[in-house]
Amino acid sequence: MHQERPRYVIDRRAYNLPDFDRQFDKKSRQFPVGETVKKLFRCSLPRLRGLVFRHLPVLSWLPKYKVKENLLCDVISGVSAGTIQVPQGMAFALLASLPPVNGLYSSFFPLFPYFFMGTAHQMVPGTFAVLSIMAGTVCLRLAPESGFSRFNATLNATVVDTDGMTGARLGISGSLSCLTAIIQIGLGFMQFGFVAIYLSESFVRGFMTAAGLQILISVLKYVFGIEVPPYSGPLAVIYTLRDIIRGLPDTNVASLGFALVSSAVLIVVKQLSSRFHHKLPFPVPMEIIIVVVATVISGPLHLSEIYHMDIVGEIPLGFPSPTLPTVSQWDDMLSTAFSLAIVGYVVNLAIGRTLAARHGYDVDPNQEMLALGCSNLLGSFFNIHVVCCALSVTLAVDSAGGASQFASLCVMLVVMVTMLALGAHLKPLPKSVLGALIAVNLKNTLLQLSDPFYLWKKSKLDCCVWVVSFLATFFLSLPYGVAIGVGFSILVVIFKTQFRNGSAVVRIVDTDIYRNPKVYSQVMSTPGVKIVNYCSPLYFANAEIFRQKVIKKTGLDPGKLILARRKFTEQQQREKAKEEKKDKQTRRRKLGSLVNMKAQTMSQLELQDDFNMNDGGANKAEPPASTINFRCKDIELGEQAPDREPTVPLETPPPPPPFHTLILDLAGVCFIDLMGMKVLIKMNSSYATLGIELYLANVQAQVCEDLEAGGAFDDGHIARSSLFLSVHDAVVFAQPTSEDSSLLKDGPHCIK
Amino acid sequence: MHQERPRYVIDRRAYNLPDFDRQFDKKSRQFPVGETVKKLFRCSLPRLRGLVFRHLPVLSWLPKYKVKENLLCDVISGVSAGTIQVPQGMAFALLASLPPVNGLYSSFFPLFPYFFMGTAHQMVPGTFAVLSIMAGTVCLRLAPESGFSRFNATLNATVVDTDGMTGARLGISGSLSCLTAIIQIGLGFMQFGFVAIYLSESFVRGFMTAAGLQILISVLKYVFGIEVPPYSGPLAVIYTLRDIIRGLPDTNVASLGFALVSSAVLIVVKQLSSRFHHKLPFPVPMEIIIVVVATVISGPLHLSEIYHMDIVGEIPLGFPSPTLPTVSQWDDMLSTAFSLAIVGYVVNLAIGRTLAARHGYDVDPNQEMLALGCSNLLGSFFNIHVVCCALSVTLAVDSAGGASQFASLCVMLVVMVTMLALGAHLKPLPKSVLGALIAVNLKNTLLQLSDPFYLWKKSKLDCCVWVVSFLATFFLSLPYGVAIGVGFSILVVIFKTQFRNGSAVVRIVDTDIYRNPKVYSQVMSTPGVKIVNYCSPLYFANAEIFRQKVIKKTGLDPGKLILARRKFTEQQQREKAKEEKKDKQTRRRKLGSLVNMKAQTMSQLELQDDFNMNDGGANKAEPPASTINFRCKDIELGEQAPDREPTVPLETPPPPPPFHTLILDLAGVCFIDLMGMKVLIKMNSSYATLGIELYLANVQAQVCEDLEAGGAFDDGHIARSSLFLSVHDAVVFAQPTSEDSSLLKDGPHCIK
Repeated sequence: MHQERPRYVIDRRAYNLPDFDRQFDKKSRQFPVGETVKKLFRCSLPRLRGLVFRHLPVLSWLPKYKVKENLLCDVISGVSAGTIQVPQGMAFALLASLPPVNGLYSSFFPLFPYFFMGTAHQMVPGTFAVLSIMAGTVCLRLAPESGFSRFNATLNATVVDTDGMTGARLGISGSLSCLTAIIQIGLGFMQFGFVAIYLSESFVRGFMTAAGLQILISVLKYVFGIEVPPYSGPLAVIYTLRDIIRGLPDTNVASLGFALVSSAVLIVVKQLSSRFHHKLPFPVPMEIIIVVVATVISGPLHLSEIYHMDIVGEIPLGFPSPTLPTVSQWDDMLSTAFSLAIVGYVVNLAIGRTLAARHGYDVDPNQEMLALGCSNLLGSFFNIHVVCCALSVTLAVDSAGGASQFASLCVMLVVMVTMLALGAHLKPLPKSVLGALIAVNLKNTLLQLSDPFYLWKKSKLDCCVWVVSFLATFFLSLPYGVAIGVGFSILVVIFKTQFRNGSAVVRIVDTDIYRNPKVYSQVMSTPGVKIVNYCSPLYFANAEIFRQKVIKKTGLDPGKLILARRKFTEQQQREKAKEEKKDKQTRRRKLGSLVNMKAQTMSQLELQDDFNMNDGGANKAEPPASTINFRCKDIELGEQAPDREPTVPLETPPPPPPFHTLILDLAGVCFIDLMGMKVLIKMNSSYATLGIELYLANVQAQVCEDLEAGGAFDDGHIARSSLFLSVHDAVVFAQPTSEDSSLLKDGPHCIK
Repeated sequence: MHQERPRYVIDRRAYNLPDFDRQFDKKSRQFPVGETVKKLFRCSLPRLRGLVFRHLPVLSWLPKYKVKENLLCDVISGVSAGTIQVPQGMAFALLASLPPVNGLYSSFFPLFPYFFMGTAHQMVPGTFAVLSIMAGTVCLRLAPESGFSRFNATLNATVVDTDGMTGARLGISGSLSCLTAIIQIGLGFMQFGFVAIYLSESFVRGFMTAAGLQILISVLKYVFGIEVPPYSGPLAVIYTLRDIIRGLPDTNVASLGFALVSSAVLIVVKQLSSRFHHKLPFPVPMEIIIVVVATVISGPLHLSEIYHMDIVGEIPLGFPSPTLPTVSQWDDMLSTAFSLAIVGYVVNLAIGRTLAARHGYDVDPNQEMLALGCSNLLGSFFNIHVVCCALSVTLAVDSAGGASQFASLCVMLVVMVTMLALGAHLKPLPKSVLGALIAVNLKNTLLQLSDPFYLWKKSKLDCCVWVVSFLATFFLSLPYGVAIGVGFSILVVIFKTQFRNGSAVVRIVDTDIYRNPKVYSQVMSTPGVKIVNYCSPLYFANAEIFRQKVIKKTGLDPGKLILARRKFTEQQQREKAKEEKKDKQTRRRKLGSLVNMKAQTMSQLELQDDFNMNDGGANKAEPPASTINFRCKDIELGEQAPDREPTVPLETPPPPPPFHTLILDLAGVCFIDLMGMKVLIKMNSSYATLGIELYLANVQAQVCEDLEAGGAFDDGHIARSSLFLSVHDAVVFAQPTSEDSSLLKDGPHCIK
């Protein structure tokens, strides 16, 4: 019996669920909440040890560290990455509207906690442009320049108290980091690492692209050397752009020159080094070279004084003294802190996972959240702006072969040396050079502007998410962008559960397979049996849609048919009565009959009930309705409005239902909530009133558990025996005449 | 061949999807977006007529109205309902911190547009306590008492400019209604009626209960006749409660007496009338009787002057003159207006659907939204506070047999008579009586406080939604409650797609059914084939969880196995090299080999790629990792931390994978987005590298379409032929030796 093609041969009993469970010994599984909670809080020495090792991964990797094999690589990669970190940190501090030295602090303090707590070996925490600019918006909003301008009578001009403003902004930045850190630590302890995955890729890319554009626009003023008043809040980017365009005639030629030359050099060297990468032992630290050269040119030649160029200025040497965050400001920065906490964590986790997959270790999402939180917390006492993974630094460490957090230590060392000694020499560095460094690094982000074209082909909804996230982020502001983007991508998920999820299916000839007859032509209908499949969770957002879909696909609204039957019976009774009495009496009688109806609806509790059931009134006594509508109508109705109420003159009795069994294929229903259950129960009872059997096929195990827990079987009167293993089982049950056994004989020669 | 139980007998070819589609003539269906949009905007006379009829349902029902049959009922029900509307409207105006006459306006003007536009025949729009109190919070916030207090030197006391304050609040209420109306009309025109269903029942009940409690607390001051400063914002209810308790010693005995007597009478009459409902021709308008009696007692006896009771006061006769809304205030009331628009609409729709189901007609959700919006819009020019369905009035109309909007007209008539003539006589009515009317009506809402106990048994998550909505609404404020409650109930949906959704399944003996072996004992495993089912949409929030689940259930992490194999090969090569060269040379060699690795990771674009793929690095060249972890680990890891990195000394080659085919049963995957697709594609390619076939079974038709559109087959290299109609088809394909045909022979005598 060997054939070319494998065959699908089955001869077994048809099962409904109780039969099946009985025959194959179903065990009941329990997931008691109490036990889980108890387990969670159980104390034991191994558990404590586990917790310590979990929260301080350094205890695991440090003893196993192979000095001979890895230390040299770590040091080389760390030092070369450090030379990238220094200029980048200073540049990003400009984005945050803070003095450049703040970028050095931000690249130094957060690395301590991460050394002990981080689970991604090659990761270097540090400044990240998007986070810097988000922190900057808060600094600008809470300490605007206008708050520190005073009219100086001697100078006859408005003077800005720059020191006071910088101090205030540093304090704000520190408080913001502290709040962000607390949010991250809290989420980490609550094991809420998974919230990060609510950021869909389409959102992240749209958001990052818009952020990149914003960053580009905000460095333009440094590149052109124009004075632009800082804006914050919605449309800030538009105002800034307008001011920059207006200010273009005042471009500082020296600034622009420095920027153009350094970006040209940077681009050329990056292109060359990516072409000749196999000949270079480690990446060329071009950023630091440019910074040094620019400083050397600008400083001794006093270009900044001659051309009034904006320069980095005095960099205070030594460590800053710790300060406490200003808790009273937290009210105003809560939403931004949340956005920072989540975005920072997502960036961190994404890079961490990439590294982990490449090197074959695991990253613990919750521990990463904690580590990041602690990094920010320590930093916040030194007024850093919020950090996450320093993208290009981490990349440099990884590509130069760094394999452990010792590389981070070396990065710290380089930053520390700059802070303690070299920083002072960077005073004459033009800010436009830092601006150019930022702008050049944005190349790839801006390339993502072509994303929508690509996404539109693949998935229209994902494309919408991208566009919405992009527009909201770009025009409103970054925190708004996060809120709107995340909200919209979750809404899209809800949309997807609402539309185009159900279809009537019929049997494909000579198989046990049921498909949509609009798609497959060789189908055979089963007389008296309607089968509808539904492919979406059944819950509050689509329970009513599901009911409407079933009505539409079966062509029968059970509620209306019941009403029509009742109405017909009443009319018949009334006609009998008419023969005895006059018309006036009838009307009085009707008024009297209304009194009876009141019983059902009088008390508010009743209406409350109805309100909860939305439209469950079908089973109650109704006052006679004047018109009955048999037409079933979908929610997205088009232009049927004029004939909404075809008056059916009830001379004839309502027709009997066109089928005796309705099978719902619930394979795609992956969960059900109480509202979904209520709709199922209601449908079951109204079909039962009409004498139609409602069978549920392919009910997923967890949906079954939900139904059990929700009382659908006991209180809801859905018979357990109307659950079937497959649509075909249900069909076999629905047709007592075993026309199926004939299939076995006909089947083989039928096919092909 | 007649048996007691039906049998399931099938002998057919086993199909993968392309075979099946070919054999059964799959037609491709298109849902072109362009066509749909074009259709949407097509102009034609019938379409125009349809639109007119749709948006003005009065054109459909008025010509068919049966005067003889229905008019009398409508008039009687309308008038009796109107007598309920008058005192209730006045009472609810107190909740909105507005003068009582505003409640009459709110019960009058909005009924005009609804008469023409409403689709629910028995519905009477009007004041609704929850909306009134929400509007009240805005009035209090934007026009606080403190803004109108001045120190009057002659009186030596602070005097509140009551008229000015009332005027300001009326203006605010009007602007708020206008904004709400615009939101509703906008949503209605965008066909966004479906957003209402995002309010799950658990949320609505929790919210309504908390609102009921808030209403109760805010009427207590009228009942006790205590002066309590109005609070708004979070915790307002707590402060109010504190002040009321503090003020209890100053209770106005007359107020309390009126309140107690009227509520006692109301409760008794309600009980009696619900018991003797069948003897009453229409509901007793007890509210208006109490109001009249209280007025008659209080007025001529001058009780308000004697006992300093708070009374309704002057009610201006006649129609108010229309005013324009103050658009500049909209900024401050946007969130509340949104909440009002949605909550009002949901209440309206729920009642409308109940009525429609009871009487057998249809309610068009979008048209209801429009009708409600227009009602509020017209009203807003007369400074009403936002209305929706007037619950008890609608109930009264329905129970007295009203069948059309003519009943609403009669309600308007009653309200108009009060406004034009009777209102003046209500001046001495104590406010405490109105407070008592509100409090008594809250009985059923407060009974819902027992909901959580009931819900906890049925569904823990629904219970959480209730509790969160309740607490947020009660302690923060109503608009916050809406935002938090809706957000949380949507988050719960996302949670449900993340946890406990996958399991390994094996074949139940002698059937084509595959189930979890932890649940069913009579199973037979298929050698070399692993089957995992997953029951949840596959999208950004759980794509990574899905991958982890498959790894956990199969016990094999393909990425790590690939790494281990590569590492082993490298080590073998290195050991060969070691025989030729010394140790030091090897280390230098390693450094050199790092340079090659750089190629993969050098450019930022690459890392960007990785970042997007999160952990897709498995297929790229990796620097040698020092330790390899075979243990697969779930995201919710417990205490495995100490042994996170078991050092596998790679002396032995990594074991071959324990299976040759992995079948994913995707029946429960009801949709897939680009991130889900990416994970599938990545899994496919990494399993392919290991020589494992990845089969997808039971892929839903719409998921198939998504995969096609997203390029999973063409760009993603998933073979179309690895899609199977069912798990058993896939298993049959995975086992070329047709051990299946033996089933037919063994089957029958095997089973029982």
